[in-house]
Amino acid sequence: MADSSRYVPPVADYTFLLGEAFGLDLVERATGGELTADDATDILTAAGEFAASVLAPLEAVGDRIGARFDDGEVRMPEGYADAYRAFVEAGWVTAEAPVSAGGDGLPGAVRAGLGEMWNGSNAAFALCWLLTAGQIHALDAAASDELRETYLAKLVSGEWTGTMNLTEPEAGTDLGAIRTVATPRDPADPNGAWAIRGQKIFITWGDHDVAENIVHLVLARTPDAPAGAKGLSLFVAPKFLPGPSGAPGERNAITTVSIEHKLGIHGSPTCVLSYEDATGYLVGEVGGGLAGMFVMMNSARAGMGFQATGIADRAYQAAAAYAGDRTQGTVLDRPVGAAISEHPDVRRLLLSASSQIFAMRALGVYVGDLLDRADRDPALTKAAEFFVPILKGWTTEDAVQVTSEALQVYGGIGYIEETGAAQHYRDVRITTIYEGTTAIQSNDLVGRKVIRDGGSTVEQLFGQIDETIADLRAAGDPVATRAADRLERSVAASRRATADLIAFAGALRDVHAVSVPYLMLLGTLAGGWMHGLAVTAVLRHPSLTDADRERLTSADFYGAHHLPRVHALAETIASGEIA
Amino acid sequence: MADSSRYVPPVADYTFLLGEAFGLDLVERATGGELTADDATDILTAAGEFAASVLAPLEAVGDRIGARFDDGEVRMPEGYADAYRAFVEAGWVTAEAPVSAGGDGLPGAVRAGLGEMWNGSNAAFALCWLLTAGQIHALDAAASDELRETYLAKLVSGEWTGTMNLTEPEAGTDLGAIRTVATPRDPADPNGAWAIRGQKIFITWGDHDVAENIVHLVLARTPDAPAGAKGLSLFVAPKFLPGPSGAPGERNAITTVSIEHKLGIHGSPTCVLSYEDATGYLVGEVGGGLAGMFVMMNSARAGMGFQATGIADRAYQAAAAYAGDRTQGTVLDRPVGAAISEHPDVRRLLLSASSQIFAMRALGVYVGDLLDRADRDPALTKAAEFFVPILKGWTTEDAVQVTSEALQVYGGIGYIEETGAAQHYRDVRITTIYEGTTAIQSNDLVGRKVIRDGGSTVEQLFGQIDETIADLRAAGDPVATRAADRLERSVAASRRATADLIAFAGALRDVHAVSVPYLMLLGTLAGGWMHGLAVTAVLRHPSLTDADRERLTSADFYGAHHLPRVHALAETIASGEIA
Repeated sequence: MADSSRYVPPVADYTFLLGEAFGLDLVERATGGELTADDATDILTAAGEFAASVLAPLEAVGDRIGARFDDGEVRMPEGYADAYRAFVEAGWVTAEAPVSAGGDGLPGAVRAGLGEMWNGSNAAFALCWLLTAGQIHALDAAASDELRETYLAKLVSGEWTGTMNLTEPEAGTDLGAIRTVATPRDPADPNGAWAIRGQKIFITWGDHDVAENIVHLVLARTPDAPAGAKGLSLFVAPKFLPGPSGAPGERNAITTVSIEHKLGIHGSPTCVLSYEDATGYLVGEVGGGLAGMFVMMNSARAGMGFQATGIADRAYQAAAAYAGDRTQGTVLDRPVGAAISEHPDVRRLLLSASSQIFAMRALGVYVGDLLDRADRDPALTKAAEFFVPILKGWTTEDAVQVTSEALQVYGGIGYIEETGAAQHYRDVRITTIYEGTTAIQSNDLVGRKVIRDGGSTVEQLFGQIDETIADLRAAGDPVATRAADRLERSVAASRRATADLIAFAGALRDVHAVSVPYLMLLGTLAGGWMHGLAVTAVLRHPSLTDADRERLTSADFYGAHHLPRVHALAETIASGEIA
Repeated sequence: MADSSRYVPPVADYTFLLGEAFGLDLVERATGGELTADDATDILTAAGEFAASVLAPLEAVGDRIGARFDDGEVRMPEGYADAYRAFVEAGWVTAEAPVSAGGDGLPGAVRAGLGEMWNGSNAAFALCWLLTAGQIHALDAAASDELRETYLAKLVSGEWTGTMNLTEPEAGTDLGAIRTVATPRDPADPNGAWAIRGQKIFITWGDHDVAENIVHLVLARTPDAPAGAKGLSLFVAPKFLPGPSGAPGERNAITTVSIEHKLGIHGSPTCVLSYEDATGYLVGEVGGGLAGMFVMMNSARAGMGFQATGIADRAYQAAAAYAGDRTQGTVLDRPVGAAISEHPDVRRLLLSASSQIFAMRALGVYVGDLLDRADRDPALTKAAEFFVPILKGWTTEDAVQVTSEALQVYGGIGYIEETGAAQHYRDVRITTIYEGTTAIQSNDLVGRKVIRDGGSTVEQLFGQIDETIADLRAAGDPVATRAADRLERSVAASRRATADLIAFAGALRDVHAVSVPYLMLLGTLAGGWMHGLAVTAVLRHPSLTDADRERLTSADFYGAHHLPRVHALAETIASGEIA
């Protein structure tokens, strides 16, 4: 059987996306010419080699052995600490950080590719990086100079790792119910030490032995704070308190109570942490906790899109390799000895997955770039924020389906754990839940980003797709024409669904009863748009390579098998709540 | 948290389905008046009590501890042997068997309910029953009097259990590649002992310690047999050879090599068996193996529909109980203290699941009854066989989605193994694979059951739905009218898709590239029909109870959220193979 630890970095797709699909020289535009598309390919190639050679071989052992909880401490499987050290030394943590924090300031579109590759090669390992990266962005936005020097610098160098502490037993989706309390040790000095008391659960990489210190970013309630989310403030609290030299010193009063026994991502320790008057420091203003945490959360939500894409691609790669090797019986209309990948239905499953993965990947690049551009141009903020819940919600939901279909490719052996397909199916299942469930993403989308502005931001998306349809028609190729026809009907259905949704605005239960179908509609449509952009880019080539023809087939498949779901979803949305 | 071992038998739904949804007195018609609908309810109530009190509490331990392989023998977790003994003593194995085999001869529609409840309470345990039942039907159809006396009687009494031995390392979907060989010990006496040699894999309950003997039904190739599937014959081979008294005697030369480490159904031992000139006896004619095995296979395929329905319902019940208990924050338009089940999206997830489960359950009853009627009236054979792949393929595919959405209801805690939601998600994943993958079901459907007769059997289904649409219109109720409108458009789309499929008949790759979408289309449509029948039955009531109103809401939800997929699938089918 094909080696399930094998990972082929999708560098060619990124080169295509960064170099031409979104208009030439996306990377140059994003960096003012400091970086070229070729430079980006070099970076992604190096990352891919690291991912394939160091991280991918550890994925199965992370699942099989997993993080262990032993005498109050979390122990990672053999190889994880070495891999983390090599990851840091190669500069991949610093690569994620903005220039303002002392990082490389790579464009968001390139970081989308890095994010996918860390997750595709080893999603459980990548969570450590993902949360560290999120905390870097949050501290860079709000931390005082002293905190930047003491904590942010150590995170950017990769010496210390970061976590996000929000959830409590009675406060998950509803963060306003958080009970953890922070009290200033000296009430006259809010910039001095605070004492944090409470219990946090579901803390990813909340304890481990791969780095010398861990920085927790904690949401807590201050004394006399108003009830609900407005009473929350943000704190950093390290596992070890930095000594005078800045090196980890005394152990802080944070106890690891237990780790969870999860369906998947066993190589990522999920901790219950008890804060027993632990020392922490305020980040930003008192009462500004949720706003501060949202910087980290938005980074993590986009990261979830890259994670889902990565896991889906890894599952697909393994299934495609298996099906390409495996022979059994004869295959319809194919010579004796043809592999099972030639069976029409196996081919359907594989094309279905690869066409979804391309759409997810392309949307990740598009949103990564848009978030960058919005940093420079506030006029784009609304558009960028509009896409974050779609990227997170739609990509993760479709990734669950991709890993399931990848397992199906194997038949019975897919159900055997040693094959590896089951791990991806188990691992991916968390992605629609953490960093805000699909319902949370959908409510954010319909409430703040569609209804609040009367649909003007989503109409910009439809307008952009109209332009792509015109470009497809101008190409005069049968695949392009089919894509244009299908997109045209899908955009029309999406406009109707948007009007139906906005018409419900006075009856919010109707809105929220179809908010997930609406998010899935926009994600599916955006995926079709991504394929449309790819088709127009490919058809500009003077002659078509095999890779070009594969892109056209993938787009055609997406249009026939995935895009039609827009019509079913539009019909669902029109119904509102069924009572 | 709600007790995840709790199982509420769906007796009320079966009473409704058996008593009125398919026309009054389905059970009386099926038994010539020997059994009334009330009798059937009594039987299902007793079975439900057994399932809930004995089988359901063992489900989690079966998952956590699972079957163990120890020194060449399979050991089941504590409690399994006692439960099996109680199951036999209560008569539930005999209940499955036809009168001709010495069983109770219960109607197929009632057995659908039993099948669902064994699987809903404990799917891994139920597999032992399911395969024993399948072998009972196969031996009843083809075994000699001597084999009936020696083996069939012991299976019907439940003293011995049965297995199905088809798959080999190089022969799964392609049974023609089977290499296991059976040689008559005395070439002059084919009714005497044969020596069987070969290796069989994926043998469910292939070894265990819950009953005194195991009867394997084995497909093997006879000397000088033609190549391919025509060269296969069927044999029974017991774990222990019966002695002169009929009791288990000497151990047969069948070695349990290993058991599989699977994603789920850990309480069902999946064995590799090595036949080392093991003694077996021919069932039926030399070369009649595949036909003989298909009796067992068809029984098992319908059984998979009941299994998928059962697992989906168990997952749904637990999620609904959790969501009904759990409070967190405030719920849109609901008083303080409302449970999370009142959130519009949680309600969507729960209604989505329950409306799918009702559709699956109703189709199981319908097909169970139709298979019975076809036994009495060969004119119905084609219709009955037409529905088997739909019941198996569509129910299992949708059940995967239901268990995933049930897990989603919990949020983060759903991903923790102890919650129990993850087990259902893992367990159900095999159902689209074993007893023939969804692709195999679909190829059977489109090849033998749609294209071969030019669509006349499927047109009978459409005609029946037309009648239900007329009944719905006559009811003059808004839910019924909406159901009629939606079904009408769906049947029209399905007729177009059928015409498109038949038009591909000269290009078989096009047919098989969309055969799974076509099966899913027919299953989704049949689900809508089942709801339509329920609506017409409910609206005949002089006044509506709460349960009646829930059925109307469920039908309305299915029509708005699930039935529209027919249109998307029809568009996909029109495309044929994308090349």
